[in-house]
Amino acid sequence: MKREVRYRNQPAQQKNKCDRSMSASSAESYNTSSSDDDDDDTNPRESIQKTSKGFQDFCVRNMQQAAFGRREIEIAEQEMLGLMTLRRKGQTDKPLIGAKIIGCTHITAQTAVLIETLHSLGAQIRWCACNIYSTQNEVAAALAEAGFSVFAWKGESEADFWWCIDRCIQSDNWQPNLILDDGGDATHLILKKYPAIFGLVKGIVEESVTGVHRLYQLSKSGKLSVPAMNVNDSVTKTKFDNMYSCRESVLDALKRTTDIMLGGRQVVVCGYGEVGKGCCQALKGMGAVVMVTEIDPICALQACMDGMKVVKLSEVIKSADLVITCTGNKNVVTRDLMDKMKNSCIVCNMGHSNNEIDVNSLRTPDLTWERVRSQVDHIIWPDGKRIILIAEGRLINLSCSSIPSFVVSVTAATQALALIELFNAPAGRYKQDVYLLPKKMDEYVASLHLPSFDAHLTELTDEQAKYLGLSKCGPFKPNYYRY
Amino acid sequence: MKREVRYRNQPAQQKNKCDRSMSASSAESYNTSSSDDDDDDTNPRESIQKTSKGFQDFCVRNMQQAAFGRREIEIAEQEMLGLMTLRRKGQTDKPLIGAKIIGCTHITAQTAVLIETLHSLGAQIRWCACNIYSTQNEVAAALAEAGFSVFAWKGESEADFWWCIDRCIQSDNWQPNLILDDGGDATHLILKKYPAIFGLVKGIVEESVTGVHRLYQLSKSGKLSVPAMNVNDSVTKTKFDNMYSCRESVLDALKRTTDIMLGGRQVVVCGYGEVGKGCCQALKGMGAVVMVTEIDPICALQACMDGMKVVKLSEVIKSADLVITCTGNKNVVTRDLMDKMKNSCIVCNMGHSNNEIDVNSLRTPDLTWERVRSQVDHIIWPDGKRIILIAEGRLINLSCSSIPSFVVSVTAATQALALIELFNAPAGRYKQDVYLLPKKMDEYVASLHLPSFDAHLTELTDEQAKYLGLSKCGPFKPNYYRY
Amino acid sequence: MKREVRYRNQPAQQKNKCDRSMSASSAESYNTSSSDDDDDDTNPRESIQKTSKGFQDFCVRNMQQAAFGRREIEIAEQEMLGLMTLRRKGQTDKPLIGAKIIGCTHITAQTAVLIETLHSLGAQIRWCACNIYSTQNEVAAALAEAGFSVFAWKGESEADFWWCIDRCIQSDNWQPNLILDDGGDATHLILKKYPAIFGLVKGIVEESVTGVHRLYQLSKSGKLSVPAMNVNDSVTKTKFDNMYSCRESVLDALKRTTDIMLGGRQVVVCGYGEVGKGCCQALKGMGAVVMVTEIDPICALQACMDGMKVVKLSEVIKSADLVITCTGNKNVVTRDLMDKMKNSCIVCNMGHSNNEIDVNSLRTPDLTWERVRSQVDHIIWPDGKRIILIAEGRLINLSCSSIPSFVVSVTAATQALALIELFNAPAGRYKQDVYLLPKKMDEYVASLHLPSFDAHLTELTDEQAKYLGLSKCGPFKPNYYRY
Amino acid sequence: MKREVRYRNQPAQQKNKCDRSMSASSAESYNTSSSDDDDDDTNPRESIQKTSKGFQDFCVRNMQQAAFGRREIEIAEQEMLGLMTLRRKGQTDKPLIGAKIIGCTHITAQTAVLIETLHSLGAQIRWCACNIYSTQNEVAAALAEAGFSVFAWKGESEADFWWCIDRCIQSDNWQPNLILDDGGDATHLILKKYPAIFGLVKGIVEESVTGVHRLYQLSKSGKLSVPAMNVNDSVTKTKFDNMYSCRESVLDALKRTTDIMLGGRQVVVCGYGEVGKGCCQALKGMGAVVMVTEIDPICALQACMDGMKVVKLSEVIKSADLVITCTGNKNVVTRDLMDKMKNSCIVCNMGHSNNEIDVNSLRTPDLTWERVRSQVDHIIWPDGKRIILIAEGRLINLSCSSIPSFVVSVTAATQALALIELFNAPAGRYKQDVYLLPKKMDEYVASLHLPSFDAHLTELTDEQAKYLGLSKCGPFKPNYYRY
Repeated sequence: MKREVRYRNQPAQQKNKCDRSMSASSAESYNTSSSDDDDDDTNPRESIQKTSKGFQDFCVRNMQQAAFGRREIEIAEQEMLGLMTLRRKGQTDKPLIGAKIIGCTHITAQTAVLIETLHSLGAQIRWCACNIYSTQNEVAAALAEAGFSVFAWKGESEADFWWCIDRCIQSDNWQPNLILDDGGDATHLILKKYPAIFGLVKGIVEESVTGVHRLYQLSKSGKLSVPAMNVNDSVTKTKFDNMYSCRESVLDALKRTTDIMLGGRQVVVCGYGEVGKGCCQALKGMGAVVMVTEIDPICALQACMDGMKVVKLSEVIKSADLVITCTGNKNVVTRDLMDKMKNSCIVCNMGHSNNEIDVNSLRTPDLTWERVRSQVDHIIWPDGKRIILIAEGRLINLSCSSIPSFVVSVTAATQALALIELFNAPAGRYKQDVYLLPKKMDEYVASLHLPSFDAHLTELTDEQAKYLGLSKCGPFKPNYYRY
Repeated sequence: MKREVRYRNQPAQQKNKCDRSMSASSAESYNTSSSDDDDDDTNPRESIQKTSKGFQDFCVRNMQQAAFGRREIEIAEQEMLGLMTLRRKGQTDKPLIGAKIIGCTHITAQTAVLIETLHSLGAQIRWCACNIYSTQNEVAAALAEAGFSVFAWKGESEADFWWCIDRCIQSDNWQPNLILDDGGDATHLILKKYPAIFGLVKGIVEESVTGVHRLYQLSKSGKLSVPAMNVNDSVTKTKFDNMYSCRESVLDALKRTTDIMLGGRQVVVCGYGEVGKGCCQALKGMGAVVMVTEIDPICALQACMDGMKVVKLSEVIKSADLVITCTGNKNVVTRDLMDKMKNSCIVCNMGHSNNEIDVNSLRTPDLTWERVRSQVDHIIWPDGKRIILIAEGRLINLSCSSIPSFVVSVTAATQALALIELFNAPAGRYKQDVYLLPKKMDEYVASLHLPSFDAHLTELTDEQAKYLGLSKCGPFKPNYYRY
Repeated sequence: MKREVRYRNQPAQQKNKCDRSMSASSAESYNTSSSDDDDDDTNPRESIQKTSKGFQDFCVRNMQQAAFGRREIEIAEQEMLGLMTLRRKGQTDKPLIGAKIIGCTHITAQTAVLIETLHSLGAQIRWCACNIYSTQNEVAAALAEAGFSVFAWKGESEADFWWCIDRCIQSDNWQPNLILDDGGDATHLILKKYPAIFGLVKGIVEESVTGVHRLYQLSKSGKLSVPAMNVNDSVTKTKFDNMYSCRESVLDALKRTTDIMLGGRQVVVCGYGEVGKGCCQALKGMGAVVMVTEIDPICALQACMDGMKVVKLSEVIKSADLVITCTGNKNVVTRDLMDKMKNSCIVCNMGHSNNEIDVNSLRTPDLTWERVRSQVDHIIWPDGKRIILIAEGRLINLSCSSIPSFVVSVTAATQALALIELFNAPAGRYKQDVYLLPKKMDEYVASLHLPSFDAHLTELTDEQAKYLGLSKCGPFKPNYYRY
Repeated sequence: MKREVRYRNQPAQQKNKCDRSMSASSAESYNTSSSDDDDDDTNPRESIQKTSKGFQDFCVRNMQQAAFGRREIEIAEQEMLGLMTLRRKGQTDKPLIGAKIIGCTHITAQTAVLIETLHSLGAQIRWCACNIYSTQNEVAAALAEAGFSVFAWKGESEADFWWCIDRCIQSDNWQPNLILDDGGDATHLILKKYPAIFGLVKGIVEESVTGVHRLYQLSKSGKLSVPAMNVNDSVTKTKFDNMYSCRESVLDALKRTTDIMLGGRQVVVCGYGEVGKGCCQALKGMGAVVMVTEIDPICALQACMDGMKVVKLSEVIKSADLVITCTGNKNVVTRDLMDKMKNSCIVCNMGHSNNEIDVNSLRTPDLTWERVRSQVDHIIWPDGKRIILIAEGRLINLSCSSIPSFVVSVTAATQALALIELFNAPAGRYKQDVYLLPKKMDEYVASLHLPSFDAHLTELTDEQAKYLGLSKCGPFKPNYYRY
C-alpha cells in the first residue's frame, strides 16, 4: 500500500485526471536533491536529442546529465544485491528473450537497475513515468545514453504525461507483450486506445494499491482479458517495504528537518500497523517515551505487549513533544487537538496521503505560518505558541529522507520475477484474472537478498522434509501464515 | 499450534491410543509443583466422595484439597481479567442459558475460571480431562466442592480416561448440546458411541492442532454433522499464545533450571517463527548474543533485519553456550552436532514435541548421564566434556516454567465466545463445516483484555469510518492481514 | 555494596550483636533450596566428625552431604572461569605459598571454588562463616572431606558463631598472616582477643560496606596496624555485581514467585542507580512499561534519556501493576501509598535492607495477611483489595532467585588478587591504611573473565601506546573514569 | 573531551600555531549549512559596520544576515530549556551584575543563547571565536544587532584570529573580570600580553581538554594566579555530551551521507567508551549486528554483558559492512585492514581527531578517489573494489549531522553556573588552582533540564535524609560515584 500512496495522495475512489497535479508537491519534494537545476524551460518534446552513439528514440530533459545519472545508478547497484544476483543468474538462460515490456513507473536510480536487469535477461524495453514529478532527469538521461527508449522528465504537463506513455506503446516493428505498471495508467491507455495490442499482451504486473484496485474492477466487469499479477500484497513487499523501511527512515526524516533530540521525548505514534510498528521500534531504540493510539483492539494489544501505553490522542496531547501519524486514516490530528498542543510540539505524517493531519484547518487568519527551513513550518498561535509542522503534512519518509536502495531491491526483484513467471508460464496456468505471486517466489525473492547479510539458510534433510510434509525447496508456510 | 502439542508429543498422523501414555513425562513434569503429594493409591473410581453440601455427581482424587484449589483459582482470576469481564458483562442476558456443555480439556486453575464463567453465563456443565497427567487435583476438588460434575484426576489409566469422558456424557435427564474439546477425544467418543446425542449437538469448539485436523478429516469424509469452530488459528491465540507467551517463559525456564547468566552468552535459536521471535526478543533484552537458524528465507530475512546473524547450526556449534530449538521439526540437534559442542553447552527445546533434539542418540554406552538437578541432566563424553540437557528435550516452557494466566485468559475467552456464537447463531449461519472465529470476535477478545493494560482505544468518527469504508465497531482488517 | 547488605539488614551505624539474628529471615530464605532438611538438632560442636580419610580438624553439620556438596561445587566451577583460570595460571609460581589465610565469609559453592583456588595457589586455609544462616551445609561438608578446616553450619547460635571464628584462629603450629573478611567480625575478634597474632598479619581483604566502614574507623583512630584492601569499591565489583547481576535476577525472582506476565505491565522502579538501571533494562526487554522515581537529578536525567518517564510514586501509584524498590533508602513505599494501590499490585524490594517497603505499617488489625505461596503474601484490605508482597519486603534477588556463579566469580577473583597483592607486595608499598585495588588489577580481573565470552582484546601498537601516553598492558583509564 | 576535539584535531601536546588551519576542514564542513554564501572577499576588519541602532563596537561578516541569525537563535532557545530557565530564575537577583566576561568559544546559535543568558543575568560581555572556521556569520550578525560586541567571522586568518581576541580585551573603560574560554587562547593572550588585566580576573572557566591541560600546566608551574574551573570533566558534560549526543547523531550522519540501510548490517564499533556505547545503542536499536573492539578489558566486559561480540578488527574485517572508530587513538583502521575490506564497506570516524582512520595511507597512486557526494568518497582499488570513506576520516557527527541544542544546553548551563560561582564565591573559597564544578552544581544543571521531559523528582523526607546522612537538597552521591 505504501509505495502507491507515496505519489498519489488520494483514496482510490477519487482517482481522476487531477491526480497527478495534486500530488505534485509530494513528488516534487521527493526529488529536490537530484534535479533542482533543470531550469531549461524548453519542452523536451520540442528539442532534438541524440546520444553519443547517435541513438534518438527517447525523450528526456538533458542528456548532459547522463554521466551523473550513471554514477547514481552504480551507487544503487551496490545496495541492490538481490536484483544484481537475478541479473547474473539469468545470464545463461535469458528467461525474457522475446519479452517486450512497457514500463510505466517512477524513474529513479533504483528503477534503472531494474530496467537494465530486465534487459540483461533478454527483454526489450520501452519506459515512461507514472508520475509527472518523480523522474530523476539524470537517470533518464543515463538510460537513454545506454540505448533505452525512455520518455520521461520531471515536470511533465498532463499532456506530456499521456504523450510519453503513447510514445512507449507506438513504435515501428515493436509490440509490447508485457506491462509493468504502477498506478494502472499504461494499462488503461492500451486497453482503451490500443485494444488490439492489449489482446496480444501476455500479462500485467502491477505494484500499486490503486492499480490493483483498477485491475480487480476490470476483472469483476469482465474486461480483463489478460492475466495480471498483484505484487502489492506479496509478503516481502508488505513486510519489508513497510515496517523495516519506515524504521530506517523515520529518525532520518526527523533529524534532517528538526535536529530534535529524541531521547526522553514523549512521542505519540498514531496507528500500530506495519508503519507504526517500524516507527515505534526506531524511536524506542533512540530512547524516546513512546505511546500509541489505535482503533483496532488486536493491534492495540500488540502495542501493549510490546511495551507501549495505548492512549487516546486527546488524553495526552498536552504533554506530547512529537505526534506522528501512521494510520491511513484522515483527520487524525484535528485543529481541535492542535489547539491543545504545547509549545514546540512537532507534528508529522508517516502514514499515507496528506490528510492524516488536518493541515487545512491551520490555514485560518488567526494563525501565522512561518517557513523556518525547507520542509519545516512554524504555525504560530495568537498567544505565541508554535507548533512545528513538517512537510506540510505530507509523508516525511518520502519528503525528508531517502528510501534505502536495499528495500527497493526487494520490491523490484518481485516485479522482475512476476514478469518472468507470466512470460514463461505454460499456457493455461494463468487465466484472465488477478493473481498473487506464488509463495515460492516470495521466498525466492527473500533468498536473493540473504547474501547481503551473509545469512546462511539451513536445508531440510529428506527425513525432516517428510516429517513436516514439505518440499525441501519450499514453499515452507501455508498461505495464511502471518510472519 | 502450541497449546495442543504441550501434551501430545506426536505429529497428528501418528495419533493413536498410546498417545496419552507417551506424553506422560511432559504432562507429569508440568504439574509437579501442585500435586506431588497425591500418594493415595486408591483409584478414585472406587472411593466414595461427597462435598460439604452432599453433592456426589463427580469423581476426583481428594476432596480435602478443595480449599487449596479454590485459592489457586482465585489467584488465577486476578490475572484473567478478560474472562472475568465476560462473566460480568453476561450477567444480565446470560447468553448460555439452555446450553449444556461437555468439556474435555486440561483441568487447571485457569480452566476452572473458564468453567465458572460458562456457568455464570447460564450454561450447565460436565467436565473431564483431555490428558491423563495434566489435572490439578486440588482444582478438580474445588470445582466439585462448588457443585460441578468433574471427572478427572492426575494419573488416570487409559481405562479411567475413557470412563471419565463417558461419565460426562451419560447423565440422567441431561444431554449435551455443545462440546468444548481439546484433542478431539470427547467429540470422537460421542460420535462413535452416542450418535443420537451427537445429532443433537449445536456445535463443537476445538482448540488443538490434532483436534482441528480430525475435524477437517471428518468434514472431508462427510461425517461432520454439526458446525465446528477452529479456535486454534484465531489471531489472538496464535500471536499471543506463541510469541508473547514464549518471550515471557524462556528466561524463566532457563533460570529455574540452570541459573545461567545470559548476558554476553552466545545463543543459537533454531527457528524464527513466532516462538523463535519471542525467545530472541527475551534473550536480546537480557544481553545475550543471539544467532538464528532458519530454513525459510522470508523468516531468515526477518531475523536479519531484526539484528541477528542467520547461521547454520553446524557453523557455530563449537562456540555456542546455549542452543534452543523452536522449529516444530525433528532431529534439529543431532548427535553429530552435540559431539562438537563445547563443554557446558546447554541444549533445550521450546518448539514442540520432544524430538527436536535427538535425545535418543545420547543414550549410548560411551556417554554418561548424570541427573544434577530436577529437570537437568549432564551428559558426559569420554573426554570429560559435559553438555547440559534440560527436561530431557521436552518443552522447557511447560516443564520448567509457568504459563502466565493472562495468556491463557486470551485463549479461554476465545473458547467462551465461540461457544456463545455457536449456541446463539441463527439457524443456517453455520453449516456442517469447520469455521474460523469471525474476525470481529477475535477483535472482541482482544478488547476484553485491554483494560489489564489501562489501554484506551480510539474510536473512528463517522466521517473517518466512511473514508476507510469500515464499520465503527469493526472488523478493522481484511482476513489476510498479517499483524 | 550489594553483597554486604544481603545479610546485614541494618545501616552500618546500628551494627551490633543483634545484627546476625535480625538478618536471619533473609539469610534463611536464601538457602532454602539447598539445606532444608537438616533437621538434626544435635549441635555440631558436640558431635564427633571425621572424613573418610580420618581428618578431624573441622566442624560441620553433616558429613554425609559431602558428595552432594562436591557436585554443587563442580557445577559452580563451570561458570567461574575467571577463578579457574587464576588457579591454572598460578600453578607454577604458586604465589600464595607461605600464606596462611583466615576466611570469614558466606560459605556457598562459589566460596568453595575460591577456597580451593587459594589452596591451589599455595595457601593454607582455615574458614568460618560470616553469617549464622547462610552456610550451605553440603558445601561445608565437601570442603571438610577435601581436608579443609571449616567451622560453619546453617543455624549457628551467637555463641556458636564466635566459637567457630575462634576455632579458625586457634590452631597448633599455625598463625594466620592474611584475613579475608566479610563484615569485619574475624578482623575484630583477632584485633581484640589476639593482638599478638594481629600484629603478624600482612594484610586484610574486606568486601562488605560494613567491614570497610569499620576499617576506615580503625584507620582514623590509629588502630589499624596492617594494610587493608577495600574490594567493595572496585569497578568490576560495583558495576557487575550490581547492574548486571540485578538485570539477570529481577525477572527470575518475579516469575518464580508470582508467575506474572510482564509484557505491557506498568512498573515503577524506585531509584535509578546501578540496581535500578539493571532492573529497568530487564523489564523493558520483556515489554513492560517502566517508570522511574529518583531523588538525584543526574540519575533522573539518565532515566529520561534512557526512555523512561520520571515520576513521583504518589502520582502513579493508582495505576501501577508492580512497584520495585532499588533505593538504599527506607520507607520508600509507605502505608499511605499502599492504601492507594490498585487491587493485585505487586510490591517488592531489590535495593538493600528490608525497610525500603514499610512492611511494619501493614501489620495492623484492619489488614489480613494471607500466605499464598512460599515468599508470597496477599495483604487484604477491608474492601477486599489485595496487594501482593514478595519476601516480606526483603531482597527478592536473594530470597527468590539465584545469583549467577559468573558474577560471584568476578568478585571472588578480585578477592584472590587482593590477597596475592598484599602477600607479595614489597615492604613499604602498603602502609597501615585502607587501599583500593590498583586499577590494573581491576582490569586483570576483567580480562580473566573475557574468555567466557570468547572476547578478543585488541592490543595497542607501540606507536599507539606512545600516542596515548599509556603502557601497552594498562592501566588504560584514569582513576576517576566512570565507565 | 568531545567538544574540544571537534575543532582541534591534534593531541594536546602538539598544540601549535598550525592548529587552527589544520582543523579547518572539520570546522568548515560543520557550518556548510548556514553560511555557504558569504562570497564577499572584503576582510570584515576593513569594512564599516553599523547596526540599525548605530552601534559599531563589533566586527562581523555581514549585518544583513542578522534577521536570519535571530531566527536560528530563537529556534535554539526552544530546545535550550535549561539555559532559559536559568535566565528566568536569575531575573530578580541578577547574580552577574558587575561581571565583565570575555568569551572565546565557537559562535553558534546555541552560544548566542548562552551569551544572551549571561547578559540577562547582569553581565557585560565581549566575545570572539575560538576557531577560525566555526563561526555562524548570521548568528554573529544577530548578536551585533542586539548590541553585543562580537568579533568573529567564518574564515578568519591567523592574524584576524588574534586581532579579534585582542579587540575583545581592549576596550575603553572596560576590563574583564571573568574569562570563558574554549582551548585556552584568550587566557593565554591575556596572561602574556596583559598581565595587569589578568591579575584582576576573578576566575576562568574552561571547557576543552586542551584548555584544561594548559591550565593544569600553568598551575603546576605556579603561573596560575586566578582560580579556574574545569567544566570539561563535570558529570553532565561527559555523560550527556558524549554518550547520548553520539547516540543521537550517529545514525543521522550515516543516513545523510550514504542512505545505507542499517538493519541486519554487520557493524564494527572500535572502542566502547562513552562514544562507542552511544553508537552501539543507536545501531542496535536500528537492527544492526554490532561488534566491538576494545583494548581495555573492563570496557570489553561491559560490551559483552551488553550483548556484543568483542573482536579484533583484523578477525572480522572481511565481513564488515561498516566500521566506525570511537577510540581517541590513532591509526586504528590501517591501510592493511582496508586492503582486506569487502566491496562497499563504509568507514567513518566518531572518535576524536582525524587520524583514527589512516586516511593518508589511502593517498597512493594505485588507489583512485572518487567524490560521489558531498562528504563521501569512494576509494577504488585496482581490482575495482570500492570502500566508502565519509568526511575524509573527520568526525562524522560534526561534519555530517547536527548536535541537538538540548545537549549543548547542558554544557552551556554548566558554564554559566561556573561563572556565577566564581564571581560570587566568598573570598578564599577558591585559591589559585583548577577546580571541578561542585557536584551540587552538576546536580543543579541536571535539574534545570528535567522539565524538558516533564520529569518529577522525588524529595527526601527529613527522616530519610537523616537515615542516608544526606542533605535534602543534595549533593546525593560521593565524588567517586560512577553513574
